[in-house]
Amino acid sequence: MKLTISKNELNDAIQQVAKAVSPRPAIPILGGIKIDVNHQYVTLTASDTDISIQSFVSVEQGDKIIAQIDKPGSVVLPAKFFVEIVKKLPSDQVAIEVTGQFQTVISSGSSEIQMVGLDPEEYPVLPSVDQNQMIQIPGDLIKSMIRQTVLAASTSEQTPILTGVLWNLNEGELKFTATDRHRLASRTTKVDLDSSYHFSNIVISAKTLVELSRLIPDQNTMVDVVVADNQVLFKVDNILFYTRILDGTYPDTSKIIPSSYETELVLNTKNLMDAIDRAYLMSREEKTNIVRLTTLESGGIEISSSSTELGRVTEQLDASQMSGQPLRIAFNSKYMLDVLKVIDSEQLFIGFTGAMRPIIIRPMDHDFSMYVILPYRTTG
Amino acid sequence: MKLTISKNELNDAIQQVAKAVSPRPAIPILGGIKIDVNHQYVTLTASDTDISIQSFVSVEQGDKIIAQIDKPGSVVLPAKFFVEIVKKLPSDQVAIEVTGQFQTVISSGSSEIQMVGLDPEEYPVLPSVDQNQMIQIPGDLIKSMIRQTVLAASTSEQTPILTGVLWNLNEGELKFTATDRHRLASRTTKVDLDSSYHFSNIVISAKTLVELSRLIPDQNTMVDVVVADNQVLFKVDNILFYTRILDGTYPDTSKIIPSSYETELVLNTKNLMDAIDRAYLMSREEKTNIVRLTTLESGGIEISSSSTELGRVTEQLDASQMSGQPLRIAFNSKYMLDVLKVIDSEQLFIGFTGAMRPIIIRPMDHDFSMYVILPYRTTG
Repeated sequence: MKLTISKNELNDAIQQVAKAVSPRPAIPILGGIKIDVNHQYVTLTASDTDISIQSFVSVEQGDKIIAQIDKPGSVVLPAKFFVEIVKKLPSDQVAIEVTGQFQTVISSGSSEIQMVGLDPEEYPVLPSVDQNQMIQIPGDLIKSMIRQTVLAASTSEQTPILTGVLWNLNEGELKFTATDRHRLASRTTKVDLDSSYHFSNIVISAKTLVELSRLIPDQNTMVDVVVADNQVLFKVDNILFYTRILDGTYPDTSKIIPSSYETELVLNTKNLMDAIDRAYLMSREEKTNIVRLTTLESGGIEISSSSTELGRVTEQLDASQMSGQPLRIAFNSKYMLDVLKVIDSEQLFIGFTGAMRPIIIRPMDHDFSMYVILPYRTTG
Repeated sequence: MKLTISKNELNDAIQQVAKAVSPRPAIPILGGIKIDVNHQYVTLTASDTDISIQSFVSVEQGDKIIAQIDKPGSVVLPAKFFVEIVKKLPSDQVAIEVTGQFQTVISSGSSEIQMVGLDPEEYPVLPSVDQNQMIQIPGDLIKSMIRQTVLAASTSEQTPILTGVLWNLNEGELKFTATDRHRLASRTTKVDLDSSYHFSNIVISAKTLVELSRLIPDQNTMVDVVVADNQVLFKVDNILFYTRILDGTYPDTSKIIPSSYETELVLNTKNLMDAIDRAYLMSREEKTNIVRLTTLESGGIEISSSSTELGRVTEQLDASQMSGQPLRIAFNSKYMLDVLKVIDSEQLFIGFTGAMRPIIIRPMDHDFSMYVILPYRTTG
């Protein structure tokens, strides 16, 4: 293997795949990044077995020559050092040559780096994914859907299935659901489909989805999604992102949502968030995060929290609309803030069916998302 | 105590003094911020006994009324919550009222916060400092002097005196020195003095000096420095910053500097820094940080490092000037990078008196700073 490549393009591709390298690889070769060179592409691959990322650098991009290939080939280079040294090389051009026994020489300007490479034949082969069925989602939409659901996924490995986000596709509606049994977030969107393609019980690690969103550029990109037996493949520009589907059956959450409410409120999202944020600061000192919401006879609501050591925060808020029974309810303010931060609507709806029943939160502008928080059982 | 004050001015003063609050205060009352209100100033005080910071907010600033004082008085409020809640208050104005038993009510817009305050009489009295003798240093100069010396201070509490920076004032020359016995940094400046004022063996914690520099604005400010028996007082704009002088006698470092050199180099600072930075990445993998510098017969130098696992980095550099004996020397690359990052000169001088003797580094543009690094004793 012998080539000369633009430092910036090589560095961009390295940074993209580097996210898949584990700091504690299961087998030593996964501590490396695999480089495959042919006359069309320089391909970088990294994997921690849960996720794998491949980035393809075209040798020619339009009129521009990105890489000069003298001899195709492959090698695996230790990731940590390779990732850091390439961005610090002195020249815009980097020459890479593999000599005997995978010894690799990287030259740039007056720097010469000899690296002990590893045998690419030992690198695990990426799973092949059948591309018969595919859905396409705009990049900024999938990023929003991820951001608006991962907050409710569990962070405890005691229930691995709940650390994921459930994906269902049915009658052209794609739905994401996450819950840790104390709260739930769901987000739907319409998908253009030629066929009656559908799937259910596809659960993808929330952490992995957050990694995926970081790879999706902010400007408009289409993301291709291919769901296979035990994994999902995402294609974003020149990147392939593979992730394992979590084992297990996701719990049925459809019965949580009440059909009618005893108390209904419409509130300004930002005002509610700021008030709960201040009450949260006080509640945090008690380690409980308990904040109370009380409807007032005057038509507004009161948000309050107290700490025996510190004192008390009391906030008065106007409601845009209010109907039903008077209410006094306690909840985890951190959970509520997580929801309020991702609600993309100036006004929101909150529905209650009593102080011990789930709290339902929806944006007023659209029906695509819904959040549920279980209240705290408190005295007084 | 009862007043209404502009939120921004109050918040700025709180953020300034908050740096002196310890997360684990020695006595409970030091977990608070003391507020003293009279008809001229609202004064905030915080202290962790090693450092104390006071910030003075003038009730009137020019034509602007910053605070409306209804009743002078004092109270101590728990720092952590107070620091965070004030910046999140909804209105530009904040009303603070102390009722019986130091119960404090903070009101802003539709927020009301009740806080359990503490008795200001229990708050330690700040030491009084005799202001007879004082030096004045421009803020940006003292910030540079701190930045260019603290890097060589020890971080080990085993030798407390070496965690400080030594200040000497003699014949109008102020000198900062820091050393951890492996490296040394010194920086001098001329100070305008009316008298023959001098001091020696004033040692101030490096960490404290870093805190002090963060309080000094970037635009031109004069810093007044008053040295007393066991402490130093800095006055920066509306802030008083008190620090304890470290106990003990600072070691004599004057004999480290050789009077002549066997090998002398003049190098481009940035090129040397970039080359050592790349070699450092490799040396770090070996946990030793060892990098070698070798003079070349062709007139330049070679910087290199190697790792049994990873490989080798080799860098060639031109020297602007080179004289004396050929040399091969090894040193800690992290120590050298720390020095190169603060050298404010395009070219630098390095002098050697042999592979086992101290390495001396100086900027070429001026004589105010000097750095020493002890070499590593290595084989081969």
